[in-house]
Amino acid sequence: MRDITIFSGNAHPELAQEISEYLGLQLSPTHIQHFSNDCLYVQMNENCRESDVFIVQPLVTPVQEHVMELLFMLDAARGASAGRLTAVVPYYAYARSDKKDASRISIAGRLVADLLQAAGANRVITMTLHAPQVHGFFSVPTDHLNALNVLATHFRKLHLTNGVVVSPDLGNAKVASVFARMLGMPVAAGSKKRISDDKVIIENIVGEVNGKDIIVLDDEIANGGTIIEILEHLSKHNVGRVFVACTHGLFTGKAIEHLRYHTEVEQIVTTNTVPIAEDKRLPNMQILSIAPLLAETIRRNHNGESVSSLFEEN
Amino acid sequence: MRDITIFSGNAHPELAQEISEYLGLQLSPTHIQHFSNDCLYVQMNENCRESDVFIVQPLVTPVQEHVMELLFMLDAARGASAGRLTAVVPYYAYARSDKKDASRISIAGRLVADLLQAAGANRVITMTLHAPQVHGFFSVPTDHLNALNVLATHFRKLHLTNGVVVSPDLGNAKVASVFARMLGMPVAAGSKKRISDDKVIIENIVGEVNGKDIIVLDDEIANGGTIIEILEHLSKHNVGRVFVACTHGLFTGKAIEHLRYHTEVEQIVTTNTVPIAEDKRLPNMQILSIAPLLAETIRRNHNGESVSSLFEEN
Amino acid sequence: MRDITIFSGNAHPELAQEISEYLGLQLSPTHIQHFSNDCLYVQMNENCRESDVFIVQPLVTPVQEHVMELLFMLDAARGASAGRLTAVVPYYAYARSDKKDASRISIAGRLVADLLQAAGANRVITMTLHAPQVHGFFSVPTDHLNALNVLATHFRKLHLTNGVVVSPDLGNAKVASVFARMLGMPVAAGSKKRISDDKVIIENIVGEVNGKDIIVLDDEIANGGTIIEILEHLSKHNVGRVFVACTHGLFTGKAIEHLRYHTEVEQIVTTNTVPIAEDKRLPNMQILSIAPLLAETIRRNHNGESVSSLFEEN
Amino acid sequence: MRDITIFSGNAHPELAQEISEYLGLQLSPTHIQHFSNDCLYVQMNENCRESDVFIVQPLVTPVQEHVMELLFMLDAARGASAGRLTAVVPYYAYARSDKKDASRISIAGRLVADLLQAAGANRVITMTLHAPQVHGFFSVPTDHLNALNVLATHFRKLHLTNGVVVSPDLGNAKVASVFARMLGMPVAAGSKKRISDDKVIIENIVGEVNGKDIIVLDDEIANGGTIIEILEHLSKHNVGRVFVACTHGLFTGKAIEHLRYHTEVEQIVTTNTVPIAEDKRLPNMQILSIAPLLAETIRRNHNGESVSSLFEEN
Amino acid sequence: MRDITIFSGNAHPELAQEISEYLGLQLSPTHIQHFSNDCLYVQMNENCRESDVFIVQPLVTPVQEHVMELLFMLDAARGASAGRLTAVVPYYAYARSDKKDASRISIAGRLVADLLQAAGANRVITMTLHAPQVHGFFSVPTDHLNALNVLATHFRKLHLTNGVVVSPDLGNAKVASVFARMLGMPVAAGSKKRISDDKVIIENIVGEVNGKDIIVLDDEIANGGTIIEILEHLSKHNVGRVFVACTHGLFTGKAIEHLRYHTEVEQIVTTNTVPIAEDKRLPNMQILSIAPLLAETIRRNHNGESVSSLFEEN
Amino acid sequence: MRDITIFSGNAHPELAQEISEYLGLQLSPTHIQHFSNDCLYVQMNENCRESDVFIVQPLVTPVQEHVMELLFMLDAARGASAGRLTAVVPYYAYARSDKKDASRISIAGRLVADLLQAAGANRVITMTLHAPQVHGFFSVPTDHLNALNVLATHFRKLHLTNGVVVSPDLGNAKVASVFARMLGMPVAAGSKKRISDDKVIIENIVGEVNGKDIIVLDDEIANGGTIIEILEHLSKHNVGRVFVACTHGLFTGKAIEHLRYHTEVEQIVTTNTVPIAEDKRLPNMQILSIAPLLAETIRRNHNGESVSSLFEEN
Repeated sequence: MRDITIFSGNAHPELAQEISEYLGLQLSPTHIQHFSNDCLYVQMNENCRESDVFIVQPLVTPVQEHVMELLFMLDAARGASAGRLTAVVPYYAYARSDKKDASRISIAGRLVADLLQAAGANRVITMTLHAPQVHGFFSVPTDHLNALNVLATHFRKLHLTNGVVVSPDLGNAKVASVFARMLGMPVAAGSKKRISDDKVIIENIVGEVNGKDIIVLDDEIANGGTIIEILEHLSKHNVGRVFVACTHGLFTGKAIEHLRYHTEVEQIVTTNTVPIAEDKRLPNMQILSIAPLLAETIRRNHNGESVSSLFEEN
Repeated sequence: MRDITIFSGNAHPELAQEISEYLGLQLSPTHIQHFSNDCLYVQMNENCRESDVFIVQPLVTPVQEHVMELLFMLDAARGASAGRLTAVVPYYAYARSDKKDASRISIAGRLVADLLQAAGANRVITMTLHAPQVHGFFSVPTDHLNALNVLATHFRKLHLTNGVVVSPDLGNAKVASVFARMLGMPVAAGSKKRISDDKVIIENIVGEVNGKDIIVLDDEIANGGTIIEILEHLSKHNVGRVFVACTHGLFTGKAIEHLRYHTEVEQIVTTNTVPIAEDKRLPNMQILSIAPLLAETIRRNHNGESVSSLFEEN
Repeated sequence: MRDITIFSGNAHPELAQEISEYLGLQLSPTHIQHFSNDCLYVQMNENCRESDVFIVQPLVTPVQEHVMELLFMLDAARGASAGRLTAVVPYYAYARSDKKDASRISIAGRLVADLLQAAGANRVITMTLHAPQVHGFFSVPTDHLNALNVLATHFRKLHLTNGVVVSPDLGNAKVASVFARMLGMPVAAGSKKRISDDKVIIENIVGEVNGKDIIVLDDEIANGGTIIEILEHLSKHNVGRVFVACTHGLFTGKAIEHLRYHTEVEQIVTTNTVPIAEDKRLPNMQILSIAPLLAETIRRNHNGESVSSLFEEN
Repeated sequence: MRDITIFSGNAHPELAQEISEYLGLQLSPTHIQHFSNDCLYVQMNENCRESDVFIVQPLVTPVQEHVMELLFMLDAARGASAGRLTAVVPYYAYARSDKKDASRISIAGRLVADLLQAAGANRVITMTLHAPQVHGFFSVPTDHLNALNVLATHFRKLHLTNGVVVSPDLGNAKVASVFARMLGMPVAAGSKKRISDDKVIIENIVGEVNGKDIIVLDDEIANGGTIIEILEHLSKHNVGRVFVACTHGLFTGKAIEHLRYHTEVEQIVTTNTVPIAEDKRLPNMQILSIAPLLAETIRRNHNGESVSSLFEEN
Repeated sequence: MRDITIFSGNAHPELAQEISEYLGLQLSPTHIQHFSNDCLYVQMNENCRESDVFIVQPLVTPVQEHVMELLFMLDAARGASAGRLTAVVPYYAYARSDKKDASRISIAGRLVADLLQAAGANRVITMTLHAPQVHGFFSVPTDHLNALNVLATHFRKLHLTNGVVVSPDLGNAKVASVFARMLGMPVAAGSKKRISDDKVIIENIVGEVNGKDIIVLDDEIANGGTIIEILEHLSKHNVGRVFVACTHGLFTGKAIEHLRYHTEVEQIVTTNTVPIAEDKRLPNMQILSIAPLLAETIRRNHNGESVSSLFEEN
Repeated sequence: MRDITIFSGNAHPELAQEISEYLGLQLSPTHIQHFSNDCLYVQMNENCRESDVFIVQPLVTPVQEHVMELLFMLDAARGASAGRLTAVVPYYAYARSDKKDASRISIAGRLVADLLQAAGANRVITMTLHAPQVHGFFSVPTDHLNALNVLATHFRKLHLTNGVVVSPDLGNAKVASVFARMLGMPVAAGSKKRISDDKVIIENIVGEVNGKDIIVLDDEIANGGTIIEILEHLSKHNVGRVFVACTHGLFTGKAIEHLRYHTEVEQIVTTNTVPIAEDKRLPNMQILSIAPLLAETIRRNHNGESVSSLFEEN
């Protein structure tokens, strides 16, 4: 394959632009419009014959529109004889639909992975899937990245000497413990209790938090319910400085409204896997860029260098 | 397979309901919602194990949402061990994206057909595809119905003795001539002229229209541009009564606004392949139901009876 | 499809026999041998043309031999024109290989699912997968059963009025809480702490256990390390009667040896998803049969009746 | 991929030879014979391991023999580890079988496209498909070329200042209008009328032809019925010089016999997408070579350069 | 599936007719023609929706035409929603192309099997494949029948008490020995010697033939070279009555001419797997019908009864 | 593709090592272990992104374990973005399961070939398949090598002037005759006779062996039954020096025990396609290495050079 060509859908062109710049490339233009019957029309406005094509599209609102855009771009690039086609999906929203917890539902995380392949994806690059098993839903080779190094670099600069990493959910404490180890901190976790069929509350916190600086870590903040609850729980303890960290900062529904009132939170640290609208950017929000990480992964993919070595702990 | 089960997405539940009633069946309920991250969630609320499942979903606005709903329903029914899965898509919007008339675009009519198969469709039932070649885009057995009999039955009741069927486009005059033969009428057609790269006008009308009752026939009325133009052309001739007929009455953009002013149009005859909102229902509009035709096709599919015999001219 | 035909590999013929009896059927004979070059040879010794074929084979030691046997039986039955082919795998051992937690490994849970399909499986019936996401690894429709009803029926007979269900792992506490709700009990869970890269210990127990009768619940007991640890932890509390419950009783390595010394355990309750050798059957072990559940699932599959309704909580 | 290797079947070795020469390559030899039971035997007599292989075979009489030859050559080259396999089919005869205009027929244009893929084609290069939708029948990336530039270059040399491009069929007038724009001419078209179920005649000509030099343009001349009819229609007008132009000059049945009598035709301009036997080469016939166009397309395919830019109008 | 529908291509309609009669069915009509550009056109003239469809077509001269006909019929029946599609290919000519004995050739026996599947075949019924391994080329369930019972029944009536079955080729002597066992006779075989790269002669005969009645058995007689050679070899021995038997009586090239001169041959016994033209029917030729065997196989396929039991030796 | 990476499973690491050395490469390490539930765990311990990966694994005892290892290595390398994946299987044990000689069995040679493809193999390199038709079981391009040149080179050094190559089985004499021609010798073959359904004996030898030096050639020696029988037969003739030669020296069961007593055998010449344990290495055994041949094939694969030319007779 001759060279790298990067396209972007409408989901997050700023990220694609930043990745391109990091690689010293021009982002190749894409033309997307709708016909009068609302059908999508996508054209890739750059020759990509035999090229190593990367299409950047996190699955953010409107999700269905963006999934279809991605499928159309893949199909268009395949038809245009792309040498290799990689879908770069920093936020794979459907990772949360990963099991059949009710009868006669779709395991949509698997279905959408199959659709990507049907539309022509030869490879996938994604980040911080909600469950690590979702990796197995992809039939094509997939690089599953995480933002822990990016977040850790940020927190190391704060020199928190008495910190603790708090996972809101005991079930997902494993990633928190990896992150804690990176920062040389202990780990704690919220213990949930189901109070009715559709309501779960955090009952208590396992691990020591009193007198400590807190980093609440989650993979994704959507409507923020869990984070708000753990913050309220923490407010009953005698904790030090409070930080919130996550990879995917969706901030849907009343998330921003609620977070605004938690003035004890010194920083909300997130990344740009998804675009964050201006009106959601609270003064205490720090948005770290994962563009360098994605760009480096793309470069290594193209050059046949190890990607896993990017994530070795040291 | 034991019995017929019919589900509907959000695109056109009234049609699915009507089909079910015609077959003496209950429409099986579907639950569709969105998660806080805008991901779709679909549950089929009726056992369909080993059943002959039909999912009714024309691809109307919002098209991408409805395509994805259909894919999720197919996948959910497949996972629920449906005996056979038929997508009933009375309006296949992507039939218009049927060729590669620009470089590096997707032939979306083919892509969406492939997605339906990837999601589990074993068969497709559709109507009045924009081009008959689109039938060949489907890898699974597909019944391609048309509404000509339904429309002809309507017009026969009007006893037009001096009528002519007018196709707005010479290129698609073939269907018009079949329809004309069904009504025992001659056919005429608008002859288009390209005046610039993005503008085509109707230059004249081939065939006799003077002194005749007119039935303008098209497969689909979207923003109505073509229909309005042919109506204005006809207004310069000395024509009799004027009717407009189409299968897919989308009436997007300013279609209704323009049609409202053409008071010479005695009837706008269309079908319910797509839902038509109350505020689009002009007083001179006649909406014929294709539910009996779809129901009969479903019944014959289930019983292994000939569908093509439904369309034999006599 | 005309009738049900059940075959068994060498992994667990007793279970297949019991399922057949429950359905009032003869288990159809299979002939399995090895050639002098150690190649496997499998013959299905019963006509199964157009039949609804179920092949029972949990993936127990020797696992690779049993996987290959299953693949050969599937292929043989497909070639013999089976009407439909369902792999009944009560213990899907590779469910534990569900993520890529090291570089350049196979997500074997997905691979083996793909192999089953490549060999001809049209459907899969399995039980208590280690992670619910593994369901999404199967491309064919899959019934994922669980033994919670079977276990709950057993424990209800004991009339424990002051019990608590204890999950050894906070991460998997969800199933424990479902089970607890079925028994009208609260739930508790062990909280693990990583003390080195390859050693995790249970630090404490979240939830009240003092003065209570204990049911330790896990999906699978292999070498029993986790169970032993939680038992030792519990021994430091003032607990009442102690029960251990699991679906898959593998008891590998020193599991039996260790469990034998925990005389405080009143009952080790497990099921026959895997065969349990005579010398592993401790006096306090209760092996419940899941044959009726599998047989009923097979019957409903064949008759097109709902399987999910078997698992509705009431 | 290391280099280009070109093979030819028996359909049109002269064209393959000419393409090879244009690229400065040797045409690689193929050995094709029949066994005594009429089975085909094909051997590619040149190493093509890891090579970029192009197999040239228009689908001309005997069509079935040539389709099978092509499938065998593709399969042989795939088995010989070709790096990439492109079927070069300048005349895809089955493009005319593009719709289901009768019940229980094959849409053969789609079927043959699927067979090419089943036999190993990774890409297809074809020309002037009867309908542009046929492009969507191919599952593999396909370059759909046309000969309009080749034809236009020829006609520009004739300096026709008062010409008009005439399409025999109003339905296919779009290509004619593109061609007319390339030559700076207006367009006209025959308007067909169905006089019985199996007979269509040209009723009149839409657009001005009187006093003008005529270029009748069609995609393909098979038995020539349509062309002869339009010529006879034109003979009733007062037209200037008359030219016939087409891409695929099959001249089957009585085509040559009839064309011979139309001495008013100054030139019959066609291309060598299909071989034209000596006895069909009328004195007024001009056979333009599309070998340079195919060769350039092959070169750009191999080098990853844009092919669409070959067809940009200027 | 509701019922059996039988179609025939042009290869051997008499056989299809005979099979249909045996089953008490009407042979469903097929319409096959060529367009003016030599493209094939196939229409199945009988509703076959949800039917159990069998298409009879041995691969005889013109082989490529008949292969394509078969592929078109399969595709047409699939598109017409056949319930199940079985290709009945009594003579699979490409079975002889079963290995790669030269570089860069197609293993056409595998390729054509793949094409049948690509065109829609769900099952195959075939007879006396040249090598038993060819069975493994088919990806779909395949019944591989043989005519040995049919031939044995014929020879039993002759009450040969001192017979020997002679295989022309030592390499294929296994089938001859099975046949010999059915008749209670010993077996002998010609031993070939390669005298140059393209010439093999029979050097001697292994086994006793002197004083015995001879049945020369081969799977297929094409140009008859091998048979003639063994007959000439036998003429040097003092043998009794001489019979020639084969399943596939192609008699191509000079086969008939040569066999005519071997007046010592009392009977040439063959079957109607392929049509045998009137002028090839020598006076000493006995053509046994395999229609009852194929019909019975079709019946058992449809009813889900064992086919292998048809071939058990007793 | 950038470079060659070679991995080995547990079947024959010495061979992989030798191939690597021949190519001047390091054998890349693989880590293989079993979990406590006997599940296999495989990790490729070297980056192979975009590399031309070759995995060496003959299918020797324990066969099922080694097949699964190979599938896991293929899947792991595919997931690790190998550029191209070739399974190097010098001994494809399942080649002997090549036909359906009993009802309801798997043609395992085909099944295992399909499994290799399902696990990610893009190509296969194998040697001396039991029947040449087995080549057609592989859907991916396959190099089918043989060891005849290696064996011939060995025997040429012995300068046998009055030798004969003896095939134990008349059915497989073709390879023996090729080998004989390479050595300028005549060929002879054992003629088998079936004495009961499961017992075959060699009745006599076709061709001259008296007074000659004997090379008994077979593709594989498993339990050695056939070889021992032919040796005993030969011992009744007045033969000269006796050699045994085979490609695959499995020596299972009592093979070594029996061969030890045949002291008339001067040399048992075999190759290292399979590992031969120390205790099986009889003093008269010569193990020739096929590592150079495999290495050269790998090199030519990587460089796109002809492999077939390695086997041209000269």
